[in-house]
Amino acid sequence: MALLVEKTSAGREYKVKDLSQADFGRLEIELAEVEMPGLMSCRAEFGPSQPFAGARISGSLHMTIQTAVLIETLTALGAEVRWCSCNIFSTQDHAAAAIARDSAAVFAWKGETLAEYWWCTERCLDWGPSGGPDLIVDDGGDATLLIHEGVKAEEEFEKTGKLPDPASTDNAEFQIVLGIIRDGLKVDPKKYRRMKERLVGVSEETTTGVKRLYQMQASGALLFPAINVNDSVTKSKFDNLYGCRHSLPDGLMRATDIMIAGKVAVVCGYGDVGKGCAAALKQAGARVIVTEIDPICALQALMEGLPVLTLEDVVSEADIFVTTTGNKDIIMGLEAYPGVKRITIKPQTDRWVFPETNAGIIVLAEGRLMNLGCATGHPSFVMSCSFTNQVIAQLELWKERSTGKYEKKVYVLPKHLDEKVAALHLGKLGAKLTKLTPSQAEYISVPVEGPYKPARYRY
Amino acid sequence: MALLVEKTSAGREYKVKDLSQADFGRLEIELAEVEMPGLMSCRAEFGPSQPFAGARISGSLHMTIQTAVLIETLTALGAEVRWCSCNIFSTQDHAAAAIARDSAAVFAWKGETLAEYWWCTERCLDWGPSGGPDLIVDDGGDATLLIHEGVKAEEEFEKTGKLPDPASTDNAEFQIVLGIIRDGLKVDPKKYRRMKERLVGVSEETTTGVKRLYQMQASGALLFPAINVNDSVTKSKFDNLYGCRHSLPDGLMRATDIMIAGKVAVVCGYGDVGKGCAAALKQAGARVIVTEIDPICALQALMEGLPVLTLEDVVSEADIFVTTTGNKDIIMGLEAYPGVKRITIKPQTDRWVFPETNAGIIVLAEGRLMNLGCATGHPSFVMSCSFTNQVIAQLELWKERSTGKYEKKVYVLPKHLDEKVAALHLGKLGAKLTKLTPSQAEYISVPVEGPYKPARYRY
Amino acid sequence: MALLVEKTSAGREYKVKDLSQADFGRLEIELAEVEMPGLMSCRAEFGPSQPFAGARISGSLHMTIQTAVLIETLTALGAEVRWCSCNIFSTQDHAAAAIARDSAAVFAWKGETLAEYWWCTERCLDWGPSGGPDLIVDDGGDATLLIHEGVKAEEEFEKTGKLPDPASTDNAEFQIVLGIIRDGLKVDPKKYRRMKERLVGVSEETTTGVKRLYQMQASGALLFPAINVNDSVTKSKFDNLYGCRHSLPDGLMRATDIMIAGKVAVVCGYGDVGKGCAAALKQAGARVIVTEIDPICALQALMEGLPVLTLEDVVSEADIFVTTTGNKDIIMGLEAYPGVKRITIKPQTDRWVFPETNAGIIVLAEGRLMNLGCATGHPSFVMSCSFTNQVIAQLELWKERSTGKYEKKVYVLPKHLDEKVAALHLGKLGAKLTKLTPSQAEYISVPVEGPYKPARYRY
Amino acid sequence: MALLVEKTSAGREYKVKDLSQADFGRLEIELAEVEMPGLMSCRAEFGPSQPFAGARISGSLHMTIQTAVLIETLTALGAEVRWCSCNIFSTQDHAAAAIARDSAAVFAWKGETLAEYWWCTERCLDWGPSGGPDLIVDDGGDATLLIHEGVKAEEEFEKTGKLPDPASTDNAEFQIVLGIIRDGLKVDPKKYRRMKERLVGVSEETTTGVKRLYQMQASGALLFPAINVNDSVTKSKFDNLYGCRHSLPDGLMRATDIMIAGKVAVVCGYGDVGKGCAAALKQAGARVIVTEIDPICALQALMEGLPVLTLEDVVSEADIFVTTTGNKDIIMGLEAYPGVKRITIKPQTDRWVFPETNAGIIVLAEGRLMNLGCATGHPSFVMSCSFTNQVIAQLELWKERSTGKYEKKVYVLPKHLDEKVAALHLGKLGAKLTKLTPSQAEYISVPVEGPYKPARYRY
Repeated sequence: MALLVEKTSAGREYKVKDLSQADFGRLEIELAEVEMPGLMSCRAEFGPSQPFAGARISGSLHMTIQTAVLIETLTALGAEVRWCSCNIFSTQDHAAAAIARDSAAVFAWKGETLAEYWWCTERCLDWGPSGGPDLIVDDGGDATLLIHEGVKAEEEFEKTGKLPDPASTDNAEFQIVLGIIRDGLKVDPKKYRRMKERLVGVSEETTTGVKRLYQMQASGALLFPAINVNDSVTKSKFDNLYGCRHSLPDGLMRATDIMIAGKVAVVCGYGDVGKGCAAALKQAGARVIVTEIDPICALQALMEGLPVLTLEDVVSEADIFVTTTGNKDIIMGLEAYPGVKRITIKPQTDRWVFPETNAGIIVLAEGRLMNLGCATGHPSFVMSCSFTNQVIAQLELWKERSTGKYEKKVYVLPKHLDEKVAALHLGKLGAKLTKLTPSQAEYISVPVEGPYKPARYRY
Repeated sequence: MALLVEKTSAGREYKVKDLSQADFGRLEIELAEVEMPGLMSCRAEFGPSQPFAGARISGSLHMTIQTAVLIETLTALGAEVRWCSCNIFSTQDHAAAAIARDSAAVFAWKGETLAEYWWCTERCLDWGPSGGPDLIVDDGGDATLLIHEGVKAEEEFEKTGKLPDPASTDNAEFQIVLGIIRDGLKVDPKKYRRMKERLVGVSEETTTGVKRLYQMQASGALLFPAINVNDSVTKSKFDNLYGCRHSLPDGLMRATDIMIAGKVAVVCGYGDVGKGCAAALKQAGARVIVTEIDPICALQALMEGLPVLTLEDVVSEADIFVTTTGNKDIIMGLEAYPGVKRITIKPQTDRWVFPETNAGIIVLAEGRLMNLGCATGHPSFVMSCSFTNQVIAQLELWKERSTGKYEKKVYVLPKHLDEKVAALHLGKLGAKLTKLTPSQAEYISVPVEGPYKPARYRY
Repeated sequence: MALLVEKTSAGREYKVKDLSQADFGRLEIELAEVEMPGLMSCRAEFGPSQPFAGARISGSLHMTIQTAVLIETLTALGAEVRWCSCNIFSTQDHAAAAIARDSAAVFAWKGETLAEYWWCTERCLDWGPSGGPDLIVDDGGDATLLIHEGVKAEEEFEKTGKLPDPASTDNAEFQIVLGIIRDGLKVDPKKYRRMKERLVGVSEETTTGVKRLYQMQASGALLFPAINVNDSVTKSKFDNLYGCRHSLPDGLMRATDIMIAGKVAVVCGYGDVGKGCAAALKQAGARVIVTEIDPICALQALMEGLPVLTLEDVVSEADIFVTTTGNKDIIMGLEAYPGVKRITIKPQTDRWVFPETNAGIIVLAEGRLMNLGCATGHPSFVMSCSFTNQVIAQLELWKERSTGKYEKKVYVLPKHLDEKVAALHLGKLGAKLTKLTPSQAEYISVPVEGPYKPARYRY
Repeated sequence: MALLVEKTSAGREYKVKDLSQADFGRLEIELAEVEMPGLMSCRAEFGPSQPFAGARISGSLHMTIQTAVLIETLTALGAEVRWCSCNIFSTQDHAAAAIARDSAAVFAWKGETLAEYWWCTERCLDWGPSGGPDLIVDDGGDATLLIHEGVKAEEEFEKTGKLPDPASTDNAEFQIVLGIIRDGLKVDPKKYRRMKERLVGVSEETTTGVKRLYQMQASGALLFPAINVNDSVTKSKFDNLYGCRHSLPDGLMRATDIMIAGKVAVVCGYGDVGKGCAAALKQAGARVIVTEIDPICALQALMEGLPVLTLEDVVSEADIFVTTTGNKDIIMGLEAYPGVKRITIKPQTDRWVFPETNAGIIVLAEGRLMNLGCATGHPSFVMSCSFTNQVIAQLELWKERSTGKYEKKVYVLPKHLDEKVAALHLGKLGAKLTKLTPSQAEYISVPVEGPYKPARYRY
């Protein structure tokens, strides 16, 4: 592996697939801006005062067209930005090209190897000798993980002289992480601790990353404040649900062109992602079956007319399997099947053929994020909700960087900001809100201008 | 008003419309039992140990067939029960008759006046000279209110000799409450305080009552522990949503026989009740418009293809108006319209005719709970979820009556009990849950047997 | 059986359940008029010219509120009318009362015996010594059948002196028909032939009746012209589909209050009625399974995500069975089951309990039309489409009574009249049609003013 | 234009974009075969007897993966085949490559000019000096048109010596047709008449082509028998409806990635295509508005909750416009707008930007078939229904080529063949049909084995 950082004529670093796709990326970014009213409102509201002036932001989040609009919102508010993707298949190369050329340092391409992926993550965090980023936008927690592991290794090394040992783990990916840290340690044994010192905080996008953060908080290991963006209502109940309702059939159709109507589709997991996937498949005419471990989610599925069964019950009759659980070992054993052959039809679309029957199973995106691997992920409008939460979280962290408001804990955004994110998206869809009269507001004991619901409200 | 308590041959008190409907009520109770697996499971699981032996339970909750199954679950577990309805129109007289004859003291009939309503509430709480109930099942908080107001008045009277003065309020209903307390005070100036002393706690069914409880907790006025059943997931996300999806069109059709397809229907409020109503109307072929004050709920409506407008925008083209807000002044001014005539087509179905056009507007259930006033309310299965929460809450309060576990605060049931309620309803619908392997459970950091979600999870 | 015809103060004959319900019936008729724009438009357009002046119309069609508006449209256009129901359970007694008191001779009540049913049919056709009706509105073909059988018997009697013999058939209902004809023959051996002479034609409402008419046409037995109203698009594709989508859940809920969500429902037959029923059940959250004999309809069901199986496959897991086929022997054997007990919960709602398990099956409307037996049938708006076809068919037959345009055959209404029926219902729902430009009309080769589709078009 | 026919190593002619895509095409053809059970059943049932032995078939129909399976079904039954696409944008180049290499003479690529398009059509019909095809598979009627125009021109030329004059028409495309015929006439003045002599008949796929055929039949101009495949129930009610329900959102998403939820979408026309498009958009969360000229289709839209308005009413608030009418001048004036700029984002996706506002409108597939231009058209399963009708129609024409059964008229397939097509698709979806008993069949007067419905039945 000899990955070389390139530089734009202006001297900004990047590593992307093909910079010549920048014009195409720019055209699509312009289309997306029309669909991202929350981000564009942030530019209009905050742009003039340049609140991020002086701030360095590193982001590890799918490098798509929508993320491009997020990045250029951060830069429009004054930030300097470096970016990598948080998934080896999710980069849209024309988006990466446009941002690399025009706005920020980007290290991302579709189809990275795991080694390349972590190289990109390291580049994204590396702001040179003067330390790391002030703020991190994270998705899945890999940037946060790298810093925490780096600090741990540095401290161990300082104490015991012991270098991290990739051979100490079976996990192939974690071996790479340890290798990177080890190699870095030899060059600069204080790098990650300088990063930690400088870091104001992280805002985390998704369930997996949030779970890691709460675990670190519980164990006292969390090194800097974190805002849990995932659990904003306008994030978790929007892009998980409505985003997947859109992007699951999109990915299925682009990858396989299969007719969904008439098929038996099994959706493993009936959380927000599962609800969105199941709704989309049902509406397209599939007969949908759900598997669940949680009796409440199972009962919700039943109330929508979806039978809840186990994989064993349905494996012989089902045509389509969708896993939405975030857990491991949901569908197993394909690679290990004796004599099975893998035929790549197109990128992210492989047919595994069994020797006995010559019948095959199509696996999308190698079992990872198929909506990003096989299509273009969630559509711009719903990502505008999620990313406006990100911008607001980053603004909040930066504004309070010296006030001590945020400790080394995990926070959610207050409800009035959640409601604000929603409000910024209503005009584009032609909606008009009703206003409470003061006497109505008193009757239900809420302020006229909100927030309107108690924290326990589930929407 | 000369309301007289009657007695069964066994000496139990009651006041119902027509005891001869008891056989019909019994037939429908038997049908409902088949649809209420959660309650029947409670009988099977707890019946043998008679956990409520010695407990007196007063309930103020719509006296319907489903409630009858709840009451007989409480008595099957050993309790002695007195009951009234929490709404003047919601009693099903055959249900009241069957319970009065067979199981508990009932004071309820369909079409009570407000004065009769509060007389029934007082009867329900009155267990004779030895004090009041041990436990209260409340819906909307009227039984709780009466005790709190009673205690307040008794203390004031003891201190100052002042009797409550109905003329001190404009609210017609509250005048009745004050009148009842005043009349009681003259007879027994310690009645409500004795009740308070005896009371172990209340479990509250619905949003309005829960809101009152949290306000009393905040102001320090709450006199006994309370369990907020409403915010169990298996309550608020089930009977509000799926119950109304069923019972809203049911009430509309029974009252008016109007074809929903093709009509323009306005749903005021897009909380769980509004979501259920809107879904039902949309699926029946109406064009549904939503009004909302909360931008998050508004954006949810938009994501389902429902325009969000104000009443003013749509009043001229809409055919059907549904208010789900729990607020006041949503639709106004009908009674005050000069020359308007009210024609009663059948009970709970009035046509108000304007003098100029001779055109009319049909008002259902006098603008109150139309699913209970015009149809039979939520169906048994979904009420089994809600009421199983009630049974579990009552059991919990009673079991912990001497341990000090519950202070004078508002509690929600722990998630594993919420999940248990759901689990009790899966078998009836033929569902099979998937079981986590230990290694999967560890991977997502939950116990194999649950609970499976963090408290913040919104379902 | 001693059924006596009664007379109004004005001397018009009738036999209904309770004339005192006329006021209630009138209130509901007035509500229905608002929902039946097609019929009200006919009154406005044709009323002034009294096209039915001098015409006698006999109708055999469910005596409901909607039919009342049809009858009063016929009388508003100048006709004299006699009416009976075409089903023993379908009469709404308040509708019958209002019409009997105000508008036409009615012989119908809810819960007729079969003998009473045919007595009513005979009364409806009997216009006294001067012969029968000029026109018949038929539903299911019973009025038409009675005349055809009567004529056949009279001819046989004249030729051979042989009277019809009820003992010649096993069919209990047909025995009654033969008995009535035999008794009539003894009194007046030319009655049905005089009817036939006078009769201008019949318009038939439904599939069963239409099938009989085409069979009579094929065998040369048809005695007068017939218009097949059933196969107007605005009839078969509207009241079968959208009517049942409304009235099937309505009947289910009124009769049983069962929660549809989560249940397994089997719909036998996926024609228009089955499509409407399946759509309603699916939307209410049931898991719907279809049984079909026709592969095309079966494939349509599959495309909507509905599995197609046989009754044997699903009988053990299904909760709800709906038969929509018009065929016999779909679900069998209940009455004959040894030891089975029938418990009537309320009219049209019987629980059959098996001796072994004490578990029961609820049978609605004795397996007949449950939407009319357990609820109020199709809603007014969709019946306005069907009945406007009836009015137009009757007008056409009457206008052409002397021109020879209609032979003793079965006709459907021309497409421009079908389109007119639809057009009359658009304004009420706020719809605006687009108009073809002459050049567009030429481009697709249709007249600017329609009709717009070839006869083979399936909608 | 210098288009050169190429030849495979086996000597078969072709002209495609890139023969090296044949392997990729073959992989996708193999996937499609799994989804096209009707065609695969035809191969199994008829392949052994080689019914098309000696038959030459020319096809003018979108050269897609699905069509590839059709072509290879025809060759598997013994036919020799030449093929072109019936639309300049609809060819899938990898499908064309695979067929050209392996199975038939193909002249088609994505993005033909109109002149190239007609050159391909001519090549497809040209079987060399010995005349033309025995059978034609047509879609839209262009192959049929070319022969009819060719014969007309030859006859005129023989009579008057006059050559066709492209300048005689304003229609740019028809100028090309006349030019081709003129050029051909100079070389061989009997070519099209020889074709006509040889031709056994045509089977036509779609509405437009069928309309032309009926017009030719009416005017006596039809030169050979035609089977109207479009009006098989398993064609028009399946690929128009279910195909578009799948492929409309597919095309929208691939071309624009726009979030459909929350948008206002106008569907012009509510025939089967419009019904499918509207259903898909509604289910994806759009607010759908319909425009219609036909009151019956308009009323159907209203019954599904879709408002029916005119374009003028909605143009200012709508986000998405879909035209499904087959008519002209539905949406007009874009190209002529002063100063408007066209920016091509990617093939088939153009943004037209207005000079005043810098706002733009995205036009897909130049206003033509966007599901084929922007995505991959209807999915395989539904096309299997349509194409099985084609195979059966071709078999029927060929089998009866000498019997005189088919005159120079337009025929539809008999219902039992329509039902057979459906039946061939049930097994793949796990469906089981119910069988009529003889007594049931008699009761409803149909044969036990079908057909089950009268011709007038609309499904």
